[in-house]
Amino acid sequence: MSVEQPVTVEVGLGERAYDILIGSGLLSRVGAEISSRLPGTRAAVITDTNVAAAHLDALKAGLEKGGIQPAILTLPAGEKTKSFAHLEEVVDGILAARLERGDVVIAFGGGVIGDLTGFAAGIVRRGMNFVQVPTSLLAQVDSSVGGKTGINSPRGKNLVGVFLQPKLVLADTGVLDTLPIREFRAGYAELAKYGLIDRPDFFAWLEKNWAKVFAGGPERAQAIAEACRAKADVVARDEFETGDRALLNLGHTFGHALEAATQYDGARLVHGEGVAIGMALAHRFSSRLNLASPDDAARVETHLRAVGLPWRMSDIPGDLPDAEALLGFITQDKKVSRGALTFILTRGIGQAFIAKDVPASEVLAFLRENHPASSKAG
Amino acid sequence: MSVEQPVTVEVGLGERAYDILIGSGLLSRVGAEISSRLPGTRAAVITDTNVAAAHLDALKAGLEKGGIQPAILTLPAGEKTKSFAHLEEVVDGILAARLERGDVVIAFGGGVIGDLTGFAAGIVRRGMNFVQVPTSLLAQVDSSVGGKTGINSPRGKNLVGVFLQPKLVLADTGVLDTLPIREFRAGYAELAKYGLIDRPDFFAWLEKNWAKVFAGGPERAQAIAEACRAKADVVARDEFETGDRALLNLGHTFGHALEAATQYDGARLVHGEGVAIGMALAHRFSSRLNLASPDDAARVETHLRAVGLPWRMSDIPGDLPDAEALLGFITQDKKVSRGALTFILTRGIGQAFIAKDVPASEVLAFLRENHPASSKAG
Repeated sequence: MSVEQPVTVEVGLGERAYDILIGSGLLSRVGAEISSRLPGTRAAVITDTNVAAAHLDALKAGLEKGGIQPAILTLPAGEKTKSFAHLEEVVDGILAARLERGDVVIAFGGGVIGDLTGFAAGIVRRGMNFVQVPTSLLAQVDSSVGGKTGINSPRGKNLVGVFLQPKLVLADTGVLDTLPIREFRAGYAELAKYGLIDRPDFFAWLEKNWAKVFAGGPERAQAIAEACRAKADVVARDEFETGDRALLNLGHTFGHALEAATQYDGARLVHGEGVAIGMALAHRFSSRLNLASPDDAARVETHLRAVGLPWRMSDIPGDLPDAEALLGFITQDKKVSRGALTFILTRGIGQAFIAKDVPASEVLAFLRENHPASSKAG
Repeated sequence: MSVEQPVTVEVGLGERAYDILIGSGLLSRVGAEISSRLPGTRAAVITDTNVAAAHLDALKAGLEKGGIQPAILTLPAGEKTKSFAHLEEVVDGILAARLERGDVVIAFGGGVIGDLTGFAAGIVRRGMNFVQVPTSLLAQVDSSVGGKTGINSPRGKNLVGVFLQPKLVLADTGVLDTLPIREFRAGYAELAKYGLIDRPDFFAWLEKNWAKVFAGGPERAQAIAEACRAKADVVARDEFETGDRALLNLGHTFGHALEAATQYDGARLVHGEGVAIGMALAHRFSSRLNLASPDDAARVETHLRAVGLPWRMSDIPGDLPDAEALLGFITQDKKVSRGALTFILTRGIGQAFIAKDVPASEVLAFLRENHPASSKAG
């Protein structure tokens, strides 16, 4: 694997600031990058069976070049691994490796491994050094930036965790070549989201260059870097999610409802696909409320369709619950005060905003109009 | 129970600053104090069976006076409750009560309940509001100040946790009247520690007033307040334990070794008793190293004996491992570089300091001289 000169994104969080390095072939430099920042450190690597099979040898070789012989813990792949039982397993694995507080815990995998490992790193000895080596597009653009870690509870997703900023994120864009195309596309939805939130030029660039992002090459690293920069900007403004950070939920209100309505059945709908449909719906809904132009909603739909992502509810295989039930999934997760909901809406491409008083009745009417059972239109 | 005017200690940690209220009868005001700081909050109370039997009705009445109807979770009493299984139980209890991020989790008990509950409050929804209502002397002077939370691992005590500062600590000195005297004494050892670290006047005051502290009345609240102030000063200088905070370990190196040497058998030695003996040994050892006067070591020993605390190894019932084995317990927990150990030593009453190069050979010689098997002297 050739090594391009990586792109560096600095996440400006004062004394918790850190670098994201993005480029192809970076696995071979992971040891050098870590030991230049944390000299003499020992390390544990937490990964899953899929990632280990494809890339663990390359990671180990890269660590060893920097003089690091890691302890390695390999967990089952999949969302179910974000559990208390696996958290305890990771905590025990780190302690069994006799790491001290200044040593480093490395998450090597997608969002599940990153969230779980970050949580464990945040609580062993009340906080270890943490390094992310994300191996999915979704994790590279999204879950490795921002410091949110966590596991699921039987009562809901991501309900338990800590804020922990990594010391370094190392996104090797070459490892994405082994991702199934459906998973790559799902990650792309979150990447495009940053254009839609507040970077209209980036969205326009993606409309022109998306095929090169999918193919690999420097455009891929460039796009990931821009998404990381965009997220880092929002996170720096609102590290602990008390305000602006809610913008990152663009597409997620409708998206989560659709995921819940399909019982989180990944065969029917994965998270990024739900976000894609959710973003299209958020734009269409904003247009229905006369906030945004219908042309902008159409642009979003056209782009999602072009890259092969679902963009309307009728793209989901199988039957969906009716509009009332979908609204129920939306309100279940949120405080509904006097029939009003908080939504991320938009005034156009790159002009998303937090709307706090969206009438539930408007949402319901919109869901009815766009429901596959009521019409064949999207 | 009458309500005295409480003493307030402000813990100055910038945006994480909070108040400790100390006084008799405070349980009746807990609802008012919480709702004046966190208006409209909902609450969950985590407690143990012993504390619930003695004081839960009073706490509930106090909360209800402030308009708070708490969810309540009662756990088994004892150190074994600081486990992953109980952490998961508390997390689930908080979620089952449908508390939001701005609601409050109340720890109502001793150090075990405080450490476990604080950890759970720190990870549910990535951080809830946390209030401590400590019911043991040890918890009032020590574990409720400083923001350390955690549970035990099979690999060691307090190895897993987070830093979380409470929003309020409410120490009702009246509830201490129901403590077994042995437990009160053990807490007193940690209280006296603050005089020995850097408050010689406080130690002198305790030498004169300790009987009133044991009896209750305003001197008790005064002593607890002074210890909290002392700890808060150290914590404000070093919130995340990278330097000065190590001073709080005065007496703990020898103390932990003795606890380990007696297999943490509370019938033989409880933590505070280990600290008492450890503090006496730290002063005697400092005198042996010609750092402190033997008169100061004698003063410490005399005071501990006066209040009924053990102060020498021969006060521990049953046989102890030999000096070499005790040194093994000391070095096990610490990084030993080139035969040198870090210890908290002293130049006299109220003049403790961090000594980083204590030769293990000196420690061994000292342990031999003071070992009950080698002489009857303390």
